[in-house]
Amino acid sequence: MRAVDIIRKKRDGGALGADEIGWMVAGIASGEVPDYQWAALLMAVVWRGMSGEETAALTDAMTRSGTVVDLSAIPGRKVDKHSTGGVGDKTSLIVAPVAAAAGVLVPMVSGRGLGHTGGTLDKLEAIPGFRVDLDLDRYRALLDACGFVMIGQTAEIAPADRTLYALRDATGTVESIPLIASSILSKKLAEGIDGLVLDVKTGGGAFMERLDDARELARTMCAIGRGLGKDVRALITRMDQPLGRAVGNGIEVAECVACLKNEGAGDLLDLSLELAAEMVAMAGCAPDIETARAVCRRTITDGTALERFRKVVAAQGGDPKALDAPYALFKTRYVRTIEADRAGYITALAARPIGHAAMLLGAGRARMDSVIDPAVGVWLHRKLGEPVDRGSRLVTVYANDAANLEAALGMIRGACSIGDEPVTPTDLIVERV
Amino acid sequence: MRAVDIIRKKRDGGALGADEIGWMVAGIASGEVPDYQWAALLMAVVWRGMSGEETAALTDAMTRSGTVVDLSAIPGRKVDKHSTGGVGDKTSLIVAPVAAAAGVLVPMVSGRGLGHTGGTLDKLEAIPGFRVDLDLDRYRALLDACGFVMIGQTAEIAPADRTLYALRDATGTVESIPLIASSILSKKLAEGIDGLVLDVKTGGGAFMERLDDARELARTMCAIGRGLGKDVRALITRMDQPLGRAVGNGIEVAECVACLKNEGAGDLLDLSLELAAEMVAMAGCAPDIETARAVCRRTITDGTALERFRKVVAAQGGDPKALDAPYALFKTRYVRTIEADRAGYITALAARPIGHAAMLLGAGRARMDSVIDPAVGVWLHRKLGEPVDRGSRLVTVYANDAANLEAALGMIRGACSIGDEPVTPTDLIVERV
Repeated sequence: MRAVDIIRKKRDGGALGADEIGWMVAGIASGEVPDYQWAALLMAVVWRGMSGEETAALTDAMTRSGTVVDLSAIPGRKVDKHSTGGVGDKTSLIVAPVAAAAGVLVPMVSGRGLGHTGGTLDKLEAIPGFRVDLDLDRYRALLDACGFVMIGQTAEIAPADRTLYALRDATGTVESIPLIASSILSKKLAEGIDGLVLDVKTGGGAFMERLDDARELARTMCAIGRGLGKDVRALITRMDQPLGRAVGNGIEVAECVACLKNEGAGDLLDLSLELAAEMVAMAGCAPDIETARAVCRRTITDGTALERFRKVVAAQGGDPKALDAPYALFKTRYVRTIEADRAGYITALAARPIGHAAMLLGAGRARMDSVIDPAVGVWLHRKLGEPVDRGSRLVTVYANDAANLEAALGMIRGACSIGDEPVTPTDLIVERV
Repeated sequence: MRAVDIIRKKRDGGALGADEIGWMVAGIASGEVPDYQWAALLMAVVWRGMSGEETAALTDAMTRSGTVVDLSAIPGRKVDKHSTGGVGDKTSLIVAPVAAAAGVLVPMVSGRGLGHTGGTLDKLEAIPGFRVDLDLDRYRALLDACGFVMIGQTAEIAPADRTLYALRDATGTVESIPLIASSILSKKLAEGIDGLVLDVKTGGGAFMERLDDARELARTMCAIGRGLGKDVRALITRMDQPLGRAVGNGIEVAECVACLKNEGAGDLLDLSLELAAEMVAMAGCAPDIETARAVCRRTITDGTALERFRKVVAAQGGDPKALDAPYALFKTRYVRTIEADRAGYITALAARPIGHAAMLLGAGRARMDSVIDPAVGVWLHRKLGEPVDRGSRLVTVYANDAANLEAALGMIRGACSIGDEPVTPTDLIVERV
C-alpha cells in the first residue's frame, strides 16, 4: 500500500477500506506514514467526509493502536459517560459517584479543558493532593475497590489518537464529525467499557453550535459504538448558558459537593441524575429508566454518592477534608461582584463569553501548555429566566491576577442581558439518540 | 500570523491575502511552517481552489523564494517556451535553436521526466558528455555567447517550489490548476525572462486530459504572467498520439537532429516551428506571426538552427560528433518490431500506454530516483490515419533489458488500433490563449 494512493482515493470522494485505514493508523507508530501525509488525508476527510464503516474502522484502528484495558476480571457492567464539553459542565464529578453508588462500575478516563471549556482533570486537581496520573494497574485496582476511578489518558491508551489530535489541532482539521467521533470513541473504547452514555452539547457554548451537527455527531457515535459491540446512548443537551452556577475549577468542585450533599438543585443536578440514570439502566442495575432515576436520586438523599466520592478522593491522594470546607477551594485575592443595572428578568447568559472570561482569569487554557489557577472562577447568582432587582448581585468573580480582571468583568457583563419579560429556558435535554 | 488560521480560512472557502501567502511560503525556508501544515493547506487548495490574485501571489512568492536571475546585462528580449509535458514531446530541442537562430535569446531551465512523460534534461543527457548542471554564471555566459542555453533547475531557482512540489507528489495534491500554474511559472519567472510561450497539452497522453482543464490552466498562467508584467501566450495542443515518431531519449535527440537537418516533416516539425514563431514574434524579431513563421522555417533550410544547436552542445560539454551519427544514440541489445496483423488504417495510437511502455524499458522514471537508460525507446513507423498493409512494420522497440520487454511490447500492441476507414487526425493546435 502507498499512503499517496489512499490520500488520492479520499480526495476524489472514494470510501477507504478498513485495511487501508488500519494501514495508515499503523503507519503513525511505525513511521511509515509521515505526518504530512496524514495532514493531507485529514483535510481530505474534512472535505469528503467518511461513511459509517470508515469511521468505525478508524475508531477501531485508533483504539487498538495501544492497550485496550481488560477489565473482565472485575465482575459487573462497566459504563462510562462522556460529554462533548461546555461551560460549567461538571457533571462527571456527580454522575460517577452517583452511578457507582447505584452499582455501576465507572472506569472514567477524562481530558483537560481547552479554550472556553473546562476539563474534568483540571477540576479534580483543584482538590489538594488529587492525582489523575495513575497507571493502568492502579486504575484497575481502584475501580475494583471504589466502583469508580477518574484518571487522565495514559501513554498506552489510543496513542494514535493522541498524535492525530495534535496534528488536527495544528492543521485546521478539528471540525469534522467523523474525526471528532472516532477520537472520542477510540479513547473510551480503550478503557475497557461495556457501554457509554454520551452528553452531546449544542448551542452557543458548545463545539457543535448547530443542533443538526450535534445530532449527526450523536448518531455517528452511537452507530459506531453499537457496530463495535458496545451499548451507546446519547442525550443531546443545551449549552446556551453555563451548566449550574459555577465556572472554574475549585468553585465547580464546591458546587458538585453541594449537589452530592443534597444542597443543590437546578439544571446541574437534573442533568447529572439523568445521565447517571441512563448508565444505571444500561448497566442493568435497575429494570427501567424510571426506577433508575429513583435509585440515583436516593444515592443523593441517603449520602451514599457523597461517601463514594469521598472514598475515591482519598484513594487518589486527595484530601477528603477539602470536601468539608469547599469554600476554601475558591479563595482568591480579588472578589468582585457584578450587579444588575436595572430590574427585570435574565434573558441571556451567554456561555461562550463567560467561559472565555474564566479562561482569561486563569481557570482555563488558551494553549495546551497554559498553567491553570485552580481557585479562580465565576459564580452565577442568577440564571436564565430568573428575576432581578436593580442592584441585585448577578455574578461574583474570583481572581488572583488584576491584569485580566477588568477584561473578564467586561466580557461577563456583555454576556448578561436583562429584559422586561420573563423567558422560559428551553428544555435542557433536547433529544435522546 | 498563524499557519492554522490561514489553513482554516482556505478550508472554509476564503481567499488568502498576498501577505498570508507570502508568509506561508517564507515559512518553508525559515522552518516556521512545518510540512504537515503546508500539506493540509495544499489539500484545502485542491478542494477550494485559488483566485487569480491568490495564484499570482503564490507564484510571486515562490519566484522570490530564491534567486531571480538578472539577464539585463545581455541586450535583447529573452523568451522561453514551456510544455506541460507529453509523450514524444521533444520540441524544446528544435524550438530553442530555431528561435535563437532567428534572433531570440532563449534562457531555458528544464525539468526531468516523470511517469509516462519524458523530460528535456534526460534527452539532452543522451548526448555523450552533455552537462545540464551549469551554475547561473555559466548559464548567463552561454546565453550571451550562443543565444540559447539549456540547464536544469539549480538550488537557487524557486527553492520553495521544489519543496512544495515534492510535498504535493507525496500528498496527492498535484492535480490542482492554481498549484500547477504557480509551480510552472515561478520557475520560469526566476529565469529572468521577458516573455513565455506555453504549450499546454490536452488529450489521453497529457496531464490535463480534458480540454476544459487545459484551457483553464492556459488562461490562469497567461493571466498570472501578464499580471506580473510578463508577456505570456499559450497554444493548447493535442496529445492523443505521441508527438513525432520517437519516444525515448537518444532516439528523440536523433529525431530532432533529423528535423534540424530538414530531413523531418510532420507534426513534430510543424508544432516546433509554430512555437518558435510565437517566440520570434513575441521577442519582436519579426513584425508579425506570418513573417516569424517564414523566418523560423528558413533557419531549418539554411542550416543555421542546426549550427546553433551544434554550438550549444559543444559549449555544454557534449560531443558534437554525436549529431553526425545520431543512430548511435539508440543502439541497444534488443531490437524488436511489431507488425500489423491486418491491413487498414491506424485509428488509434494511444500516447499514454506508449509512454508507459517506454518508461518500463528504462526511458523514463517510475520514481524520481529511477535510473534512465538513454538508448532505449520506441520508433513509430506509422502515425494516426496512415495506411498499413498486413505485416508492415508498425513500431520498432529498442531495449537493453529482456525483463520488461514483453510487457512493453504488449502495452504498445494494445495502444495501436487498425480499422477499415481512414481517420483524419484532429488539428494539432486546438486553440490559442
